[in-house]
Amino acid sequence: MSELQLQGAAAKKAGRALAVAGSAKKNTALEAIARILTERQDEWLQANAEDVAAAQEAGMRPAMLDRLTLTKERIAGIVDGVRQVAALPDPIGTVTKMETRPNGLIIGRRRVPLGVIAIIFEARPNVTVDAAALCLKSGNACILRGGKEAIRSNRAAVSLMRAALEEAGLSADCISLVQDTSHETAEELMHLNGYVDVLIPRGGANLIRSVAQNASVPVIRTGEGVCHVYIDSEADLDMGAKILFNAKCSRPSVCNAAECVLIHESVAEEFLQKAVPLLKTKAVELRCDKPSLSIVGAAGIPAAEADWDTEYDDYILAVRIVKSAAEAIDFVNEHGTGHSEAIITNNYFTAQHFLDQVDAAAVYVNASTRFTDGGEFGLGAEIGISTQKMHARGPMGLEELTSCKYVIYGEGQVRE
Amino acid sequence: MSELQLQGAAAKKAGRALAVAGSAKKNTALEAIARILTERQDEWLQANAEDVAAAQEAGMRPAMLDRLTLTKERIAGIVDGVRQVAALPDPIGTVTKMETRPNGLIIGRRRVPLGVIAIIFEARPNVTVDAAALCLKSGNACILRGGKEAIRSNRAAVSLMRAALEEAGLSADCISLVQDTSHETAEELMHLNGYVDVLIPRGGANLIRSVAQNASVPVIRTGEGVCHVYIDSEADLDMGAKILFNAKCSRPSVCNAAECVLIHESVAEEFLQKAVPLLKTKAVELRCDKPSLSIVGAAGIPAAEADWDTEYDDYILAVRIVKSAAEAIDFVNEHGTGHSEAIITNNYFTAQHFLDQVDAAAVYVNASTRFTDGGEFGLGAEIGISTQKMHARGPMGLEELTSCKYVIYGEGQVRE
Repeated sequence: MSELQLQGAAAKKAGRALAVAGSAKKNTALEAIARILTERQDEWLQANAEDVAAAQEAGMRPAMLDRLTLTKERIAGIVDGVRQVAALPDPIGTVTKMETRPNGLIIGRRRVPLGVIAIIFEARPNVTVDAAALCLKSGNACILRGGKEAIRSNRAAVSLMRAALEEAGLSADCISLVQDTSHETAEELMHLNGYVDVLIPRGGANLIRSVAQNASVPVIRTGEGVCHVYIDSEADLDMGAKILFNAKCSRPSVCNAAECVLIHESVAEEFLQKAVPLLKTKAVELRCDKPSLSIVGAAGIPAAEADWDTEYDDYILAVRIVKSAAEAIDFVNEHGTGHSEAIITNNYFTAQHFLDQVDAAAVYVNASTRFTDGGEFGLGAEIGISTQKMHARGPMGLEELTSCKYVIYGEGQVRE
Repeated sequence: MSELQLQGAAAKKAGRALAVAGSAKKNTALEAIARILTERQDEWLQANAEDVAAAQEAGMRPAMLDRLTLTKERIAGIVDGVRQVAALPDPIGTVTKMETRPNGLIIGRRRVPLGVIAIIFEARPNVTVDAAALCLKSGNACILRGGKEAIRSNRAAVSLMRAALEEAGLSADCISLVQDTSHETAEELMHLNGYVDVLIPRGGANLIRSVAQNASVPVIRTGEGVCHVYIDSEADLDMGAKILFNAKCSRPSVCNAAECVLIHESVAEEFLQKAVPLLKTKAVELRCDKPSLSIVGAAGIPAAEADWDTEYDDYILAVRIVKSAAEAIDFVNEHGTGHSEAIITNNYFTAQHFLDQVDAAAVYVNASTRFTDGGEFGLGAEIGISTQKMHARGPMGLEELTSCKYVIYGEGQVRE
């Protein structure tokens, strides 16, 4: 057996015990994680400082470097997140649809953990603890495979979390880290059938597509967001400009930010007069189709074909004029990634039609796409936002990290 | 674009319209399918007769030939199944968890179809209609890829169903057949990302494993069943023998049939004295570990290592003696396929422990594994039995062919 198969087998065994450990024990472990990460934060900070120094030397971009860096404040935020997860209701063990069948069999559907969840992510040390806490609370063992730039930070955090698990009487193997960050281990993890029940990639579009294309274990795609705001002919244009500004500019680097505005031709000129000055306060680059470019003039540049399918994650916005709501819906379904889509309209029927016809995880009327988030949706926390339709769609909280099993109480029944 | 990509694009377009078609229209179409398959059954029977003749010439085994063959009675049964699907409640459009968030956003989760479901199956012409009816009712377009031995039957059935769709005012492309049954089209279907939302293989273990290993579209594994019956030290042995006989012999070719009996050593001799004569009425071959072979003597043969992991689909049973319920549970979790597992016991705590610890889609106390079935579980119909944990587990009815989307009603909200 390879190193990773051994790790998979250990995780599977630990997961079996964790699946029936009960809420009290899991919450004790989460509290121990929060306490030990706080008490021994110097070890974590020290390891992180080494990661940061190495990344600086290797010429990492400032934005990336910032994501990699831990501070006492950031650790306090991460620890606070762990305590919030502990406070959430435990989804495991709920039995639904229990009924007595005509033959006397009592059949119910019990919520159980998925088993072993593998997570491949990049150089964000907060993900290590967030993901581990959500997996633990939902009764799943996790195998974490972070980016090589954060390996020292991740080793420190996972070692502290494993100490907390043991203190709480759970197996340390409920949380484990892939020590070798070479490309080969990521590949092997994608094919660890029999050990990994679900693989969740968290990171950029290239990582996610590569995992979805190559993995033979079940995958949940998350976080690809080419999101649109459509300004209807009957939109409140001031509201529309405000929502578009929020959807584009409040945090351009995240997946629920808007990348493209579609505008009904009958209101295009008036809308752009309101929206462009607002967007220009953040120096948003406008990549326009011909009709919109003729309106905004020097405030925009021509869009290329690729702009209609690009997640910029930056202060860039594609602008396009459409002839009807139907054209907008077709365009969204063609070019969106099934993440979050919004219409701005005062027309009841147009709004309902957009909700019905747009095929995405979250469809909004008169609100910003930026709300697609586990916290905002009332899930308490999230491990990512699924853009696929199988298993889970939209923000994934604890319940989305579970499966079910049928439990059947008989008294000797046999089938005719 | 390839032939199959064109077919995928047509299915996707048809699926978008079908997703919002409403129950009345879908039921009209199902009724039209039932009627036209009956009225024009001669076309279907004629095509099937050609398939059967070709298969006979090619030397197909009698059991397979029987599965391939259609009769008026079998068609009546298939048509009856279509009408039963029409009578089931429509899962689409239900909104759950709708609530008004503190910021005034009204957020609800609406049940929607998966989109396009591809099904790869073997030479059973009934699957063609069953699967199409379930997909249609749940609002999904389907792409059917059956075995080459049934291609003429499938062409006839799909052509009749497409005529019924058009009569009901739906696009014929809601149901389509892959015309080329070469291995290459199966491969291409497994990689038709962007068109196929879910791929369900229905057939033997080799087909299912190959699809799960190779596909880049999301897959639901169904129907692999290495199922166990465990006879506990505190079992009612007469009941145990009756249940084991039912689990093994009532229909050995299906996935919920038992392949292996585990017996607590303290009751092994007494139990086998009761069970073996019963099993021998069906000439069941017993493949035994050493301790059980020493009990049954000439009634059994020695088991090879591979026997503990084999789905016989035949009158063959692996027999093994264990020292404890814990050993039985470990064995089941190691060698089972996560399908259906049963314990026979009078002990309350042993029963609960088995239900908790066994990791399978359906776990039984004192009942036959043969009940794992959509009809028996009250789902009305099933497209297969999922043995994976993601998306669906156990019998898959209409609800398991759906996804959800969040619909959000705003009044201008932006995110801080």
